[in-house]
Amino acid sequence: MSPERIRALLEKVGSGELSAEEAMEALRDLPFADLGYASVDHHRNLRQGFPEAVYAEGKTAEQIAGIACEIAAKGSPLLVTRLDVSRLKPLRSLLPEGKYDALSRTFRLEAKESPRPRTRGYVAVVCAGTSDLPVAEEAAITLELAGHPVERIRDVGVAGIHRLLARREVLARASAIVAVAGMEGTLPTVVAGLVASPVIAVPTSVGYGASLGGLAALLSMLTSCAPNVAVVNIDDGYGAGVFAATINRA
Amino acid sequence: MSPERIRALLEKVGSGELSAEEAMEALRDLPFADLGYASVDHHRNLRQGFPEAVYAEGKTAEQIAGIACEIAAKGSPLLVTRLDVSRLKPLRSLLPEGKYDALSRTFRLEAKESPRPRTRGYVAVVCAGTSDLPVAEEAAITLELAGHPVERIRDVGVAGIHRLLARREVLARASAIVAVAGMEGTLPTVVAGLVASPVIAVPTSVGYGASLGGLAALLSMLTSCAPNVAVVNIDDGYGAGVFAATINRA
Amino acid sequence: MSPERIRALLEKVGSGELSAEEAMEALRDLPFADLGYASVDHHRNLRQGFPEAVYAEGKTAEQIAGIACEIAAKGSPLLVTRLDVSRLKPLRSLLPEGKYDALSRTFRLEAKESPRPRTRGYVAVVCAGTSDLPVAEEAAITLELAGHPVERIRDVGVAGIHRLLARREVLARASAIVAVAGMEGTLPTVVAGLVASPVIAVPTSVGYGASLGGLAALLSMLTSCAPNVAVVNIDDGYGAGVFAATINRA
Amino acid sequence: MSPERIRALLEKVGSGELSAEEAMEALRDLPFADLGYASVDHHRNLRQGFPEAVYAEGKTAEQIAGIACEIAAKGSPLLVTRLDVSRLKPLRSLLPEGKYDALSRTFRLEAKESPRPRTRGYVAVVCAGTSDLPVAEEAAITLELAGHPVERIRDVGVAGIHRLLARREVLARASAIVAVAGMEGTLPTVVAGLVASPVIAVPTSVGYGASLGGLAALLSMLTSCAPNVAVVNIDDGYGAGVFAATINRA
Amino acid sequence: MSPERIRALLEKVGSGELSAEEAMEALRDLPFADLGYASVDHHRNLRQGFPEAVYAEGKTAEQIAGIACEIAAKGSPLLVTRLDVSRLKPLRSLLPEGKYDALSRTFRLEAKESPRPRTRGYVAVVCAGTSDLPVAEEAAITLELAGHPVERIRDVGVAGIHRLLARREVLARASAIVAVAGMEGTLPTVVAGLVASPVIAVPTSVGYGASLGGLAALLSMLTSCAPNVAVVNIDDGYGAGVFAATINRA
Amino acid sequence: MSPERIRALLEKVGSGELSAEEAMEALRDLPFADLGYASVDHHRNLRQGFPEAVYAEGKTAEQIAGIACEIAAKGSPLLVTRLDVSRLKPLRSLLPEGKYDALSRTFRLEAKESPRPRTRGYVAVVCAGTSDLPVAEEAAITLELAGHPVERIRDVGVAGIHRLLARREVLARASAIVAVAGMEGTLPTVVAGLVASPVIAVPTSVGYGASLGGLAALLSMLTSCAPNVAVVNIDDGYGAGVFAATINRA
Amino acid sequence: MSPERIRALLEKVGSGELSAEEAMEALRDLPFADLGYASVDHHRNLRQGFPEAVYAEGKTAEQIAGIACEIAAKGSPLLVTRLDVSRLKPLRSLLPEGKYDALSRTFRLEAKESPRPRTRGYVAVVCAGTSDLPVAEEAAITLELAGHPVERIRDVGVAGIHRLLARREVLARASAIVAVAGMEGTLPTVVAGLVASPVIAVPTSVGYGASLGGLAALLSMLTSCAPNVAVVNIDDGYGAGVFAATINRA
Amino acid sequence: MSPERIRALLEKVGSGELSAEEAMEALRDLPFADLGYASVDHHRNLRQGFPEAVYAEGKTAEQIAGIACEIAAKGSPLLVTRLDVSRLKPLRSLLPEGKYDALSRTFRLEAKESPRPRTRGYVAVVCAGTSDLPVAEEAAITLELAGHPVERIRDVGVAGIHRLLARREVLARASAIVAVAGMEGTLPTVVAGLVASPVIAVPTSVGYGASLGGLAALLSMLTSCAPNVAVVNIDDGYGAGVFAATINRA
Repeated sequence: MSPERIRALLEKVGSGELSAEEAMEALRDLPFADLGYASVDHHRNLRQGFPEAVYAEGKTAEQIAGIACEIAAKGSPLLVTRLDVSRLKPLRSLLPEGKYDALSRTFRLEAKESPRPRTRGYVAVVCAGTSDLPVAEEAAITLELAGHPVERIRDVGVAGIHRLLARREVLARASAIVAVAGMEGTLPTVVAGLVASPVIAVPTSVGYGASLGGLAALLSMLTSCAPNVAVVNIDDGYGAGVFAATINRA
Repeated sequence: MSPERIRALLEKVGSGELSAEEAMEALRDLPFADLGYASVDHHRNLRQGFPEAVYAEGKTAEQIAGIACEIAAKGSPLLVTRLDVSRLKPLRSLLPEGKYDALSRTFRLEAKESPRPRTRGYVAVVCAGTSDLPVAEEAAITLELAGHPVERIRDVGVAGIHRLLARREVLARASAIVAVAGMEGTLPTVVAGLVASPVIAVPTSVGYGASLGGLAALLSMLTSCAPNVAVVNIDDGYGAGVFAATINRA
Repeated sequence: MSPERIRALLEKVGSGELSAEEAMEALRDLPFADLGYASVDHHRNLRQGFPEAVYAEGKTAEQIAGIACEIAAKGSPLLVTRLDVSRLKPLRSLLPEGKYDALSRTFRLEAKESPRPRTRGYVAVVCAGTSDLPVAEEAAITLELAGHPVERIRDVGVAGIHRLLARREVLARASAIVAVAGMEGTLPTVVAGLVASPVIAVPTSVGYGASLGGLAALLSMLTSCAPNVAVVNIDDGYGAGVFAATINRA
Repeated sequence: MSPERIRALLEKVGSGELSAEEAMEALRDLPFADLGYASVDHHRNLRQGFPEAVYAEGKTAEQIAGIACEIAAKGSPLLVTRLDVSRLKPLRSLLPEGKYDALSRTFRLEAKESPRPRTRGYVAVVCAGTSDLPVAEEAAITLELAGHPVERIRDVGVAGIHRLLARREVLARASAIVAVAGMEGTLPTVVAGLVASPVIAVPTSVGYGASLGGLAALLSMLTSCAPNVAVVNIDDGYGAGVFAATINRA
Repeated sequence: MSPERIRALLEKVGSGELSAEEAMEALRDLPFADLGYASVDHHRNLRQGFPEAVYAEGKTAEQIAGIACEIAAKGSPLLVTRLDVSRLKPLRSLLPEGKYDALSRTFRLEAKESPRPRTRGYVAVVCAGTSDLPVAEEAAITLELAGHPVERIRDVGVAGIHRLLARREVLARASAIVAVAGMEGTLPTVVAGLVASPVIAVPTSVGYGASLGGLAALLSMLTSCAPNVAVVNIDDGYGAGVFAATINRA
Repeated sequence: MSPERIRALLEKVGSGELSAEEAMEALRDLPFADLGYASVDHHRNLRQGFPEAVYAEGKTAEQIAGIACEIAAKGSPLLVTRLDVSRLKPLRSLLPEGKYDALSRTFRLEAKESPRPRTRGYVAVVCAGTSDLPVAEEAAITLELAGHPVERIRDVGVAGIHRLLARREVLARASAIVAVAGMEGTLPTVVAGLVASPVIAVPTSVGYGASLGGLAALLSMLTSCAPNVAVVNIDDGYGAGVFAATINRA
Repeated sequence: MSPERIRALLEKVGSGELSAEEAMEALRDLPFADLGYASVDHHRNLRQGFPEAVYAEGKTAEQIAGIACEIAAKGSPLLVTRLDVSRLKPLRSLLPEGKYDALSRTFRLEAKESPRPRTRGYVAVVCAGTSDLPVAEEAAITLELAGHPVERIRDVGVAGIHRLLARREVLARASAIVAVAGMEGTLPTVVAGLVASPVIAVPTSVGYGASLGGLAALLSMLTSCAPNVAVVNIDDGYGAGVFAATINRA
Repeated sequence: MSPERIRALLEKVGSGELSAEEAMEALRDLPFADLGYASVDHHRNLRQGFPEAVYAEGKTAEQIAGIACEIAAKGSPLLVTRLDVSRLKPLRSLLPEGKYDALSRTFRLEAKESPRPRTRGYVAVVCAGTSDLPVAEEAAITLELAGHPVERIRDVGVAGIHRLLARREVLARASAIVAVAGMEGTLPTVVAGLVASPVIAVPTSVGYGASLGGLAALLSMLTSCAPNVAVVNIDDGYGAGVFAATINRA
């Protein structure tokens, strides 16, 4: 039941067309979700400018292109994640102004006139090994598409701690840090010990044997003794980016 | 916002005390959940006669008694589950008309004037070993408290299949079957192969070693090749009873 | 030993052709399973009209076609599940009147003159994401092939709860609900809180990382705090459909 | 090596007391960590007013009291977590001005003159069942001790969604939300779908059987389809509180 | 329906008291399982002399005594397993001729006149550490109570291989070997490489950390590269004993 | 050091060519393993006629052919397991008298003059679904190649128990039973309840979702309440065949 | 068969009392393990001075005292691990010169005249939290009892990296490092990045929730990207100590 | 900040060009990591001659060649691991003097003038099955490239213990042993019982079913009752080689 229909109802009561009792009856069956829908949409508006994401895995090139065009038509910024170059073609034809990034396997399209959000500062995206780069880059691109400044810190690991320490100042000034690691699962804990800001840990499925597809890193991060660490799903660069953006909004 | 307040609002619109626009404003802020609450309550009414359950594990004897009295005061039938006799005393003093069953560790109190639901027939509650009896009995008592006839079939196992086959007719005529098993995790599958009705499988944590606290039975039941089997949580006799009751309601 | 053979035996005793002792001997060797077979078949008759399913995974196109033809020859409705289009050809040639559905990867053939079962109402099949659709559709097609009305509710998720709430009435009137979800593993719980009928939860293997191939959703559903939920195996749309049908039969 | 010692060294070089070469020698042995220590301490200062926590599990009453007194002596706010009342006595004697909270099993002591941090708003701490309350309260007390306003939202669950929806406004206005749940592991996802702010999910070990000591809830939260959710360790109310505080600092 | 009742029925048909049709009716309702029961009992007879076991865990002293007396009354040999001395008293009073063994925590009662089975030879029961002894002894006592000769080989381990090799001849002449091990999970594989007879491996829950309650030993035994090894449940000395007895019967 | 060399040494002592002390010295360095080798070989001889197996997975067609020829050259019966037809060619050229079985993916070559072992009777190999057939057939072929009579019992399942009961007599007379099952993981337990002989359970990796690649069946079999069941590795038809052969040898 | 008996045999051959053939017969039955035993003992001698350990868990105070006295009687150094003070009494009475350490729960007795081994240098034993101290101390005491110098480095963690860096020189000069950690599972990796010597990582069962009893730390250590790390069982301070000693022996 | 820059700074203070205060300022901003970097580099020098490894999995042929050339340009010995022959070409063109080993899938390039390290002796690399050879060879080649003598011991297994015992002397004289095993997971334990030196156990992912991709072997090795065993990640031949080298350096 749209606000319009409620107003019409109330006007009929005001004009005497409907008794209070009859209006009560009409309202009794009013599916409360309709109101809910409106109110949630209100929140959607507050999120304006945030990219909608299409998870490409398990979809055909045509399905991806179809869904992406619907989103683009609404004027929202668009992000397609986990997109192999082999399924890129239809998307590129339909949305030629979009950009594909082979490292992170993402396709993005900025909203035409989306206003930049007010931000607290920048988000640092840090990763250890080169094999963690795709996930880190997915997080960084998500943040940039949402209008947040990003500092990328790469190739800093725990086994060679000095390179990480050398970037300590950049880390310390970030309003949030996304720390991505597979075989160096302890990276977020070490980073968190150097700063006072929230660290979002992203385990990656990089590794073999006892890595268990990222579970070893995940468990290591969850049991981190640094309390300013929280964790997202394995390989979930997009989720980490969105989470960091909610923190960095002024 | 209670129905009463909405009616008062509408009456003010009817009497001209409030313009439609003003009422609209008042309704806009109306937390839609209040209406939702009402509507869910409506469903609650449809469920009338169904026992509310208190899960006693991890609560003190006093807490249990307190919560139980609140429910009893509403006139609902009451079921306390996982109640060790050591924490029974305060409950028994406050609700002396309730009945404690040591086998299933349940305390129950029938609603004073709850009408029996119309049922399709009876529910068979079957279990293999004597150590599965407490969970089976929790299911049976849940069903009986909700007004459903129950046929108990005990001590029929897969390793001695003849005892199970001997009860085939009782199983076949049930409108639903609750099959409880720990070390005989295959019981629900065998039962399901003998009947055409839905079988609700309850794994129990009985067993040792590779039983993994009931996980072996749980997995065995989930991968059952009989399609008329669905599974509830380990040791969840109450859940199985409620689920069977939703099926057996005419 | 068929009933006919037993009757013949008894008639010989009646006519004096056989002594009681000799008949006793003949009966002693009577494999009891023969009787059992008959009696189970009797139940099969009660299930009349129910589709027999062929699980195509791990079988060659030729094997599938062979088994399917045997079933079709008996006049039973037929359902082939998990059938990639690449293995469809021989089946299509032999049973040209069958229908293939690419989304659910099922092939079905209605029984020529199977009478519709008497049903209590309709079954609602609800799913959250588009990637859960194949499993949901397998459940829906299973139900329809068995003669049950189905209401499909798609694209309602927990993270955007309003769309689900908007379909509340359709859910509440169903005699049973099949709720399919992978990454939105909590959907069945939320649905179960809105209705009084039994909810059959189907976890899907959709997802990555900590989804563990559907285990995360499975565990989440099993530990649901709503007691009117029971669970089937991961991706088992067919099983959920059969289970719902056993409930919806009048 | 403190800044004072380095300055003294440099002054000696300036005065000719020490040659550059000799100073070089002295510096060569300078443990670089000393500088590091200083710089980390600088961050510690920024965190000023934040409680230091003592994890009481596995320590004797005397050990706990000893460590707590050291912290209190420094003037820091103090938080002892997981403290059974049975080990409280020595602590209470030594720090009589501290407060023990039986629900969350915490002991706290506010810093005498710790200035309130500037905050962005309040943190909402929401939980589903009464058995999740101890962990939720540990998070809330951690936040309050660090000077952050807290809104407690209790007894709102997914299986009875209306109570949660009724508190939607309070949730939406929070600058961060801590969502605590065991058997209602989907609560954080539903909450995250209603708001635009970051949701810190805390799985609890409440539950039985397939709950696997909180792992079911943990996995469910990690695979949540709402991207504004991040997760901390099972039962880690303290960690969730600290993490939320890092977000809520202005 | 006992054979006697079937014969009576047939005699009535022979005497004309009952028509074939009426007898048919009577037989139609004959639960086929009754025949099955008889036939299974026949097998039971073949197993004559085999001990019936009562698993004492989770039963009260009174329940154990009750069940044990029923078995003893039938004249079968009796074995109570996992019986702590604290629950022994009622059993000892009622069955004073029984023997309690504290190491294996078993209580046994030989059948009064059970004939020794014909055996192929002896069974070797081998274990590595002293902490595996209780499980090994449960197996040995099960075998002896069933009338099988047993050779006990203790304190032979893989880390000190020479002690095992020294007993090679005794192992090689056994008709079956029960190999019990927790932390020396590889013992059955090494033993199996020395002999040509079947080796029944029993993992024990002895150990800590990565032993995972016996799972490490279980997995190690299952993946043994020696093909003459089969495995029973963790700590299941009774099962291993029964299995070995089925092999050693001549 | 071969027996021949030891005898030569002793003869030299007897003839006075070598003093006892010198012989002692020569023996002191005798690597004890040489004796051990001999003694193990002795056992090998006892096993005479038993097939040597080549596990083809992870080997090239050429490697397989090479190893197989070495075995064949020794005159032993040969069994190649897990051999895809794509890697068969070189083997077939070199050993044209061998037989390939596509169902079990085995290649076998009988020993030219291997005497049949004396056996106790036959081994029954039973399986439930058609997808378990390859593993069951690997067991059956292993047994036959080793000279043991085999009774194959196929397509008997727990969900349709009557077909299994119909074959009860064949099962009961077997001296050992190999029971192969994936989704019907309970089959070995049911079979074991019908017979007095040892049942070797083989879980298969057939199934999906909660089957966990055969772990569900494995756990179900290990926790079977029938004590005459022991288990081998998932899909290990060869191991089950060898184990059964060690039992069936007279 | 002892060397003495072999010599006697050879002498009889030399004296003609025994023919070569008869001696051959006698030797044929010679269990080769006897020789093996001797040779292994030889290695035992090389290990001279190394403590024999008694794992006290699951043994009674009397059993522990008995085994310990046997070892002490041989003059070997003795180490009893996992010994609660409650079971200490009999041991203390019988071996009053032994020392009990409450922190590591060890009892030790130095060998009376065991010569110090020649060592390469010292072993550093490093741990992060105070709750890891008992395991670290078990390792240190094991080393000291075996005659190896130990440097203890405590309370250095990854979350506060500077304290670890401050001890870098002591770490770098050690010939081996034992790194003990539970919640700071990444400690060994960070340490390994600072040094060129082998690091033996010991996960501890300290922690809760996703620590999974030490498995999180174990997996984190195994997947460490620093190649100079190897891992022992959870809480196995004794094993780590012995392993480090084998490295530090000159 | 290099030592040169610090010295320059100090010299300016000595010459009066800079006041102590100004030098203090310059030093204050000195990123302590620079010092750290230097000190770590110092350790790098100590490790001189040690191969740098490129893990090829998940990298393109071009990326691998690029990284490899950078390392080669520095004059370090180079090791590329997990390199399929299909990605070898660019590497071979650019570094034609390197050697590819198909068994271990490694590419190596010796440093032009790297001095041999002083070693304690040789490292024994032992493996059981031929399928474990690739991992064993990766360890052996790593050691040889680092200048350590290696003794390869192949095809010695636990199920045929005599072949292992025959090599006992070679094992006993090694200064460290790398023991590689998949299905014979117990090999390192048996080896460790024969020697006094440290044994580095490498589980391999060889096997099927309950091998769980190497986890069964891993757990078996970790719970080994021989204390001179430590474990590295599944299939990590390189790590085992490096670890052994750190021990074997004199």
